[in-house]
Amino acid sequence: MQAILLSIGDELALGQTVDTNSAWAAAKLATLGISTVLHETVSDDQDLIAASIGWASTKADLIVISGGLGPTDDDLTRQALAQAMGVELVEDAESMADLEAFFAKRGYTMADRNRVQAFCPAGATMIANSCGTAPGIRATLNRAEVFVTPGVPREMKAMIEADVIPAVQTKLAEAGAAESKVILATKINTFGYGESDVATRLGDLMQRDRNPVVGTTVSDGICSVRVRAEFPNVDEAQQQLEDTVTKVQDVMGPTVFGRDDTSLQTALVKLLLKEDKTVATAESCTGGMIGSMLTDVPGSSAAYLGGWVTYSNALKTSQLGVRPGVIEAHGAVSKEVVIAMAESAKQRSGVDYAVSVSGVAGPGGGTEEKPVGTVWLGLATPNGTTARLARLIGNRTSVRDRAAKCALQMVRLTLMGEELGHIRWLAKHDV
Amino acid sequence: MQAILLSIGDELALGQTVDTNSAWAAAKLATLGISTVLHETVSDDQDLIAASIGWASTKADLIVISGGLGPTDDDLTRQALAQAMGVELVEDAESMADLEAFFAKRGYTMADRNRVQAFCPAGATMIANSCGTAPGIRATLNRAEVFVTPGVPREMKAMIEADVIPAVQTKLAEAGAAESKVILATKINTFGYGESDVATRLGDLMQRDRNPVVGTTVSDGICSVRVRAEFPNVDEAQQQLEDTVTKVQDVMGPTVFGRDDTSLQTALVKLLLKEDKTVATAESCTGGMIGSMLTDVPGSSAAYLGGWVTYSNALKTSQLGVRPGVIEAHGAVSKEVVIAMAESAKQRSGVDYAVSVSGVAGPGGGTEEKPVGTVWLGLATPNGTTARLARLIGNRTSVRDRAAKCALQMVRLTLMGEELGHIRWLAKHDV
Repeated sequence: MQAILLSIGDELALGQTVDTNSAWAAAKLATLGISTVLHETVSDDQDLIAASIGWASTKADLIVISGGLGPTDDDLTRQALAQAMGVELVEDAESMADLEAFFAKRGYTMADRNRVQAFCPAGATMIANSCGTAPGIRATLNRAEVFVTPGVPREMKAMIEADVIPAVQTKLAEAGAAESKVILATKINTFGYGESDVATRLGDLMQRDRNPVVGTTVSDGICSVRVRAEFPNVDEAQQQLEDTVTKVQDVMGPTVFGRDDTSLQTALVKLLLKEDKTVATAESCTGGMIGSMLTDVPGSSAAYLGGWVTYSNALKTSQLGVRPGVIEAHGAVSKEVVIAMAESAKQRSGVDYAVSVSGVAGPGGGTEEKPVGTVWLGLATPNGTTARLARLIGNRTSVRDRAAKCALQMVRLTLMGEELGHIRWLAKHDV
Repeated sequence: MQAILLSIGDELALGQTVDTNSAWAAAKLATLGISTVLHETVSDDQDLIAASIGWASTKADLIVISGGLGPTDDDLTRQALAQAMGVELVEDAESMADLEAFFAKRGYTMADRNRVQAFCPAGATMIANSCGTAPGIRATLNRAEVFVTPGVPREMKAMIEADVIPAVQTKLAEAGAAESKVILATKINTFGYGESDVATRLGDLMQRDRNPVVGTTVSDGICSVRVRAEFPNVDEAQQQLEDTVTKVQDVMGPTVFGRDDTSLQTALVKLLLKEDKTVATAESCTGGMIGSMLTDVPGSSAAYLGGWVTYSNALKTSQLGVRPGVIEAHGAVSKEVVIAMAESAKQRSGVDYAVSVSGVAGPGGGTEEKPVGTVWLGLATPNGTTARLARLIGNRTSVRDRAAKCALQMVRLTLMGEELGHIRWLAKHDV
């Protein structure tokens, strides 16, 4: 089964927004063994959208269109689909009732312009939207099953998972398992090594003609090892996939924190809950990012009690008791300061572990001795306090992001009884 | 002049990598008045790439293809271009010499597989690559001028700036200024109203046949009004664009916080610095996100002193002096608690403004009285303290994100002497 993805919107075609929906949807479809052969991004031009839909409907079995279902005049996807199908738009009573209920529930009166969202091409059906106002549309055109979802990533993803995937699975089952091949893919997420180090460690596992095939991708400092198994049946694919995953995990050791969508903070919170331990944060250059990452995880309140954002030196002193003389003698970015921050945070919050960060995120503030990317990390534990120096590369955003991830991985490795040396960006000892 | 962009690669089509090249190139071409009507991402399939090139060459004047010029077996763009042109690949002696020199300079022997990179379709010409091994290709096919660049973003961007843009400018000049047009585009970013409210306010400004044309896009709660002016010369385009921008700003009032890439936190920090005021944060459900956003802005240390992440009730009491009886009587998500948090944060840090947040981010923790999305925001100012109730929609991630943005916009509006009612998600009064 082959798929074509269409993303609609001037802001995408003109490059004001990067289309992330297509990559997400293509990856999702790949797990079902569906090859996305083409993505197209089309501007808000009804004729052009209709032409693209028409062309795609002769080339693919599945078309997923996102965007252009909103209530405004530049939202033209439903009209274009009707044009491609050669039919009129008709009102869907149930969708109109849903729309009215959506607004009523929130105490708003529905604007007239929203009414268009309850119309769909004659012969097509509506798909209820669980998290927004615009229902989706499902239709058949030439050889293709066509699904239209809203462009808002959250709504698009929810609709693809709840409606498109099950519908496609039904179609695949109807088509008969005999002809099909199964593609299973997974990602093993690591933090601590750069991509070329990971590739060196993986060695022969990365040979291109291997099945399952192994590749690497880096995103925001997380190096993910992708494994993709292509076999005639699901049992064999599953077993081969897991066999290779085990090999990758053996090679990468404790730098591996999770599979697929698992984030470093999710892995850490899970471990803290399992070990019944608590953590607090004392942040300077990361400015609350570590706390924000940890609280991003549902249920984190049992493991993360909170922390301090001591961005100014005055707050480091008044709230965490870092003596002004220490800051004066060693600088705010120093081993002494992060140790004082971590120990004070641990003592004041009563946690088991407190992690602290102070660094030069840039673009200004660097010196010869402490260039941009110089970050000190402190960790107070039940068995004493340690500090490490990280030398990070990149701009302000990436220095802060990597510093926060180093902090999370430091807590995680310590909880596991593993060496901090698994994080390659940290100096070997506390210098 | 109309352009079509093609990005080649399985990793893009399968969604393992997000295509950021196309958005960059489209934005670049737009500044020359070239409309990108379509992007296409095509998998590593020679026939499909050739078909796409052929089709595009009848629809557009300019085709920019990136990717598939590498030395490995899955790099098929040069072969596909030759196929679309109906010609053979021929060796380019100069490129071969360049390639050999590239490797020799680095002390490597060129692998045989690299030789293919010095071949191009008969009748096409090579474009030297200033920062990698793969030369680009320039050809003419049907009505289109075709440029092929490497897929590596750095190499693609360098080649577009050094070769594609000048060539296109020459073509535009040859075509005569009379026929040419200039497209200028900008975004006006607002926070406080939903998309349909913004559309209602914009009214006739959003008519599709208007020039400059006005559209809206929502991303993470930020509603951006896009303005796109298409005129014969740059002066007129500029004047018309700014004229429409002024109209949009008049209609949207203080919800407008900036143009183009300006973030809400950047606008707030800039305003704080201008007014010589300081701010602190006291966060519960946002867990450090507001601090993280503020410190994302270079130079924010003069405006943002820091804050507290009092995720647990114990820390609310021990660090911000919120009396346990208050939490017991009203709950952690209450007017009384956010007022106490904001006032204590202001007093302890010595800032001019302190903002506090406590809410139910979900997925658990909601009650009938305080469902998921219930967020209290407090703001302590030199003229007293206020609190507002926000009822937000969405999952944990979006509730937290919107809550943080409401907090930033509350500080901003207050600094400007504007009503908090410009944020539509806030209850009118402090309930």
